[in-house]
Amino acid sequence: MIHNNISVLDNGHLAFADADVVELAKKYGTPLYLIDENKIRENCRKYKSTVEKYFGSESLPLYASKALCYKDIYRIINSEGLGIDVVSGGELYTALSVGFPAEKVYFHGNNKTEFEITYALDNNIGCFVVDNFDELYFLNDEAAKRGVVQNILLRLSPGIDPHTHRAVVTGNVDSKFGLPIETGQAFEFVSAALNCKNINLEGIHCHIGSQIFDKYPFTDAAKNMLDFALLVKNELGYSFKKINLGGGIGVRYVESDSKSDIDEIMCEIKNELDELVSERGLDKPIFLFEMGRYIAANAGMTLYTVGSVKEIKGYKKYVCIDGGMCDNPRFALYQSKYTFYNASNANSEPEELGTIAGRCCESGDVLSDEIKLQNFSRGDILAVAVTGAYNYAMSSNYNRVPKPAMVSISNGNERLVVKRQTYEDIIANEI
Amino acid sequence: MIHNNISVLDNGHLAFADADVVELAKKYGTPLYLIDENKIRENCRKYKSTVEKYFGSESLPLYASKALCYKDIYRIINSEGLGIDVVSGGELYTALSVGFPAEKVYFHGNNKTEFEITYALDNNIGCFVVDNFDELYFLNDEAAKRGVVQNILLRLSPGIDPHTHRAVVTGNVDSKFGLPIETGQAFEFVSAALNCKNINLEGIHCHIGSQIFDKYPFTDAAKNMLDFALLVKNELGYSFKKINLGGGIGVRYVESDSKSDIDEIMCEIKNELDELVSERGLDKPIFLFEMGRYIAANAGMTLYTVGSVKEIKGYKKYVCIDGGMCDNPRFALYQSKYTFYNASNANSEPEELGTIAGRCCESGDVLSDEIKLQNFSRGDILAVAVTGAYNYAMSSNYNRVPKPAMVSISNGNERLVVKRQTYEDIIANEI
Repeated sequence: MIHNNISVLDNGHLAFADADVVELAKKYGTPLYLIDENKIRENCRKYKSTVEKYFGSESLPLYASKALCYKDIYRIINSEGLGIDVVSGGELYTALSVGFPAEKVYFHGNNKTEFEITYALDNNIGCFVVDNFDELYFLNDEAAKRGVVQNILLRLSPGIDPHTHRAVVTGNVDSKFGLPIETGQAFEFVSAALNCKNINLEGIHCHIGSQIFDKYPFTDAAKNMLDFALLVKNELGYSFKKINLGGGIGVRYVESDSKSDIDEIMCEIKNELDELVSERGLDKPIFLFEMGRYIAANAGMTLYTVGSVKEIKGYKKYVCIDGGMCDNPRFALYQSKYTFYNASNANSEPEELGTIAGRCCESGDVLSDEIKLQNFSRGDILAVAVTGAYNYAMSSNYNRVPKPAMVSISNGNERLVVKRQTYEDIIANEI
Repeated sequence: MIHNNISVLDNGHLAFADADVVELAKKYGTPLYLIDENKIRENCRKYKSTVEKYFGSESLPLYASKALCYKDIYRIINSEGLGIDVVSGGELYTALSVGFPAEKVYFHGNNKTEFEITYALDNNIGCFVVDNFDELYFLNDEAAKRGVVQNILLRLSPGIDPHTHRAVVTGNVDSKFGLPIETGQAFEFVSAALNCKNINLEGIHCHIGSQIFDKYPFTDAAKNMLDFALLVKNELGYSFKKINLGGGIGVRYVESDSKSDIDEIMCEIKNELDELVSERGLDKPIFLFEMGRYIAANAGMTLYTVGSVKEIKGYKKYVCIDGGMCDNPRFALYQSKYTFYNASNANSEPEELGTIAGRCCESGDVLSDEIKLQNFSRGDILAVAVTGAYNYAMSSNYNRVPKPAMVSISNGNERLVVKRQTYEDIIANEI
């Protein structure tokens, strides 16, 4: 099994967080998102304790909530003592709706709207990660109107290629995110921000990318960021208090993926950072991190019902399910790999090649290429592992398919945390 | 201008369906979907009259509603006398909610759920386009329970490569859709269907793909389908009454795209079909067509507000907007090309290379590669043309961005047809 919260029961059914998923499918219908709350908490604790161990108790581990955002997860994250980053007013609204403390919110985004900026200011969020000059000046003006001084970080593009999928690379010099060090634009921003009376520039941020399995992208980015910090100290006499290295630690989706050990990676990052900081004679900054996928991905599973198994003789076998790119567009977008189980007959061996085909009226709606699969029959429950991140978050109503329900499992008890969308919900805003 | 419903007003603003889009953006906010109702009607009329001209009044032009589905469009389609195809219970529900006549509905899908099949049966829809044996037998049983005989078409995969984007090719032998002629599976299906007492097999259907600019994919498919019809007639003594050739006539998104002339294409198809039918000594069947993009695409436009223009010196210029892959995922999915206008300064010449960057926290969230653009400044309204198809239909709440409102313009009068989603709407089903 790809993660330790997946097992097989005596009746041959797949279990997730020790719950019989075939029974859950029967009770709640399919498609169905499952969340293993204990796994989220375990991931949070490992992340938090590792960050604190290596970077001290003033360091702040954040949950990057764009990976999986729904009301209940903010309750969990809050009870685990993490901060969050949000990338929109909608994420902020969701967090605030369950009482998440605004001072622990970092607000990201390459193009925050004026409405979002004023909404976040009015709710006294902790920090804006400012992307560009337009945002800086608007924020300064609005903070002035409110008589407050707003903490910000500057988003940098540090010029690092993390060797991941093109669509999830975010730290190159040429990026829609942040301002580059190389061109001098980041330095100009710092000068400008220091002249803004209602802005307190706490430090700098970068996010290099996703699915990173070793220290180098982080330490390479940190090196560039610390060189920049030194430049700012020398030229402007200003020292950054916070350096946010973003997230991106890799998660295992299929057996052939590496296992990432957060303790090992953080330990190596810490050792290199200590050296980099002391070489430059800088005061040790507070380091921040933002993990999303790491917290949510392996805490999720999606269940589908097989409607038909279509064998095109001499060509391919299609296992057709009642969901697809509408609830998980990651294969259509990035050809992302997943691990599939026949949850109704979980002990069977993978036998033949097949393709998991979604229900949408589009050839690109598949969840896999041709891969070795267990046998499936109509009515079987197909389970897709490691769907906690960027599945519910990216779901659509393409083909007017209602969004699935989500059930959270904690210590053997399950509860509905997102109700299944109805047809009536889908047309609710249409006149 | 890429289509004749786009023009420039004396004040330099862009007009769509003769309405000042900068004024509409001010009134309704952005992002905003616009629909030119007169253009939808014009497209419907051209399509219907052309099909009737070449294939007779008993031929049935259908609107493939997955391209753009919202309540009001079914009112328009109904008043224009077209039938529809739907690909889900959700589309059917939407159509029925505004009184669309059920007998003019064709129900598609490679994996209709049991709920959807019974829901459609209970509402007496005209025809199921049956994809596979599981669906056939379930449908026959359910029709028997209700004491009805249900009309169906068989979906074929006719073995045609229409040379379009891989994700929108649907007529190959190896396809998740339908049953192939080549392997004998389509013939087996016909034999089985003719033995189902509560099934009336009216004919066959195929859909070859999208963005087709000449007759050949249609006539090649028709040749294979008519060969199959002849085989069925010879072997089983059964004649198909209906042959549905699907849709896919290409739409012009950018200047370099071909112009497609539906009259010319239909005329050529008709001439070739006449020959193919008479060569085989078949009775002339009723021909059906299903156009979605053709009806909706150029009747749509999307408006965004530019939040910042970021020039990464020596690299790229990014024009950052307040929407993106959440309201239009087609570039992220297929690298689809679009035509962009500075609606606030529509007479200006395209000057420099730039990239339209969306607001989502993902590098892949862009709406274009680097292309030649007019100059943009913060606050300008950016208009994207030809967004009527597969934009609202594929929109998501990725990053918790609310879905845009939609405004329909008819004879100079505009009205809201889809209300803007609120943050409260987004969390409505979360507990």
